[in-house]
Amino acid sequence: MAGGDELKLLGTWASPFAIRVKFALALKGLSYEYAEEDLASKSDLLLSSNPVHKKIPVLIHNGVPVCESNVIVEYIDEAFAGPSILSADPYERAIARFWAAYVDDKLLASWVTILFRGKTEEEKSDGKKALFVALETLEEALAKCSDGQGFFGGDNIGLVDLALGSQLSWLKTAEVMSGEKFIRSDKTPLLAAWMERFSKLDVAKAALPDVDRVVEFAKMRQARMAAAAAAAPNN
Amino acid sequence: MAGGDELKLLGTWASPFAIRVKFALALKGLSYEYAEEDLASKSDLLLSSNPVHKKIPVLIHNGVPVCESNVIVEYIDEAFAGPSILSADPYERAIARFWAAYVDDKLLASWVTILFRGKTEEEKSDGKKALFVALETLEEALAKCSDGQGFFGGDNIGLVDLALGSQLSWLKTAEVMSGEKFIRSDKTPLLAAWMERFSKLDVAKAALPDVDRVVEFAKMRQARMAAAAAAAPNN
Repeated sequence: MAGGDELKLLGTWASPFAIRVKFALALKGLSYEYAEEDLASKSDLLLSSNPVHKKIPVLIHNGVPVCESNVIVEYIDEAFAGPSILSADPYERAIARFWAAYVDDKLLASWVTILFRGKTEEEKSDGKKALFVALETLEEALAKCSDGQGFFGGDNIGLVDLALGSQLSWLKTAEVMSGEKFIRSDKTPLLAAWMERFSKLDVAKAALPDVDRVVEFAKMRQARMAAAAAAAPNN
Repeated sequence: MAGGDELKLLGTWASPFAIRVKFALALKGLSYEYAEEDLASKSDLLLSSNPVHKKIPVLIHNGVPVCESNVIVEYIDEAFAGPSILSADPYERAIARFWAAYVDDKLLASWVTILFRGKTEEEKSDGKKALFVALETLEEALAKCSDGQGFFGGDNIGLVDLALGSQLSWLKTAEVMSGEKFIRSDKTPLLAAWMERFSKLDVAKAALPDVDRVVEFAKMRQARMAAAAAAAPNN
């Protein structure tokens, strides 16, 4: 980082979108100020930095905000020296962007359904099926990257590793709360080994939240949603 | 384009996602083979080229498929010479990616609700309100780009122009079918002027479908959806 660069990250500790930005900053060896946002009472800085979506994460670089997690990660990759998050090869970049979008569209949606969005047992069960499909699809994708022995980015972690890794504590939380094992070495062995490998990285250890803490957070959120539903009219 | 490069695009004529890829190919001056897909009976080539989503558009470059419209557009930008679709500046690239995502998440969703997804008058009305909010937000964004007199990409069209431009015939179709004017020079004058400017570009003229044809297509789709709803159980 050039001398004098000031970086500030607005996030919440449990957000996978904020976590992947922390990963990227750590990967580049950048120091930054972190501000935990209270989404029930958003800071003026968040509201003025991301007036369109009013969402975290926001990375403020020398006073200029950049919003949307994958946009921020690509910005960090392009604006700062250090290990590359995306390959220089156009085709490999396209493949990484494709799978990073898949991880958010399919994988994330499935555990959100299991934990929060699914209103009936049937909907939650559909979420579990979708999660297994997503994991199996990612297993096949990983098999094509360094024979499945490394990372989605090859020998080093890349955009897909950051997107998937940012959801690890939540995947484990979904396992704890549903009493079902999703990341199974008998079903998706390469992915299970990837998760072990990723979790041991310094980048991961520094930013991945403790699963017990996420479980408590998820339980509180479920209770709050149940209370809100019970209080709603026509219920 | 390097001699010997073979490009084939799988798309449907009315898809804004396929249209923006056509824009990008035209902008770079690339010649390509185009194959119109029948989504009710997808080709083996589409199914094998995009086994994950089974969706158009797919760009096949020397036999290797690239999927997802914005991923394809960035791939075209990075793999081929010609006018740049994204700036070389990391911050400007981030801003373009932010607004390109906004155009798809907010603007596209609003006219899809007006035309297809909205089941009640109230839902359709919500779609119209969301469309006006999206257009006003984009008006403010455009005002910051070359004082609103050029394109989102500055003096030349860029990623946001392609994403927004690819929806022009559909925005006009939503106007025709709802009998309401959305692109109004009294409400969003910069955007209305941008649309005039964009529509006159060779890139746009070559790939934007005729509004009358899209209106007929939308009417058929609405009729098909109504028939399917009437035939569904519990209705």
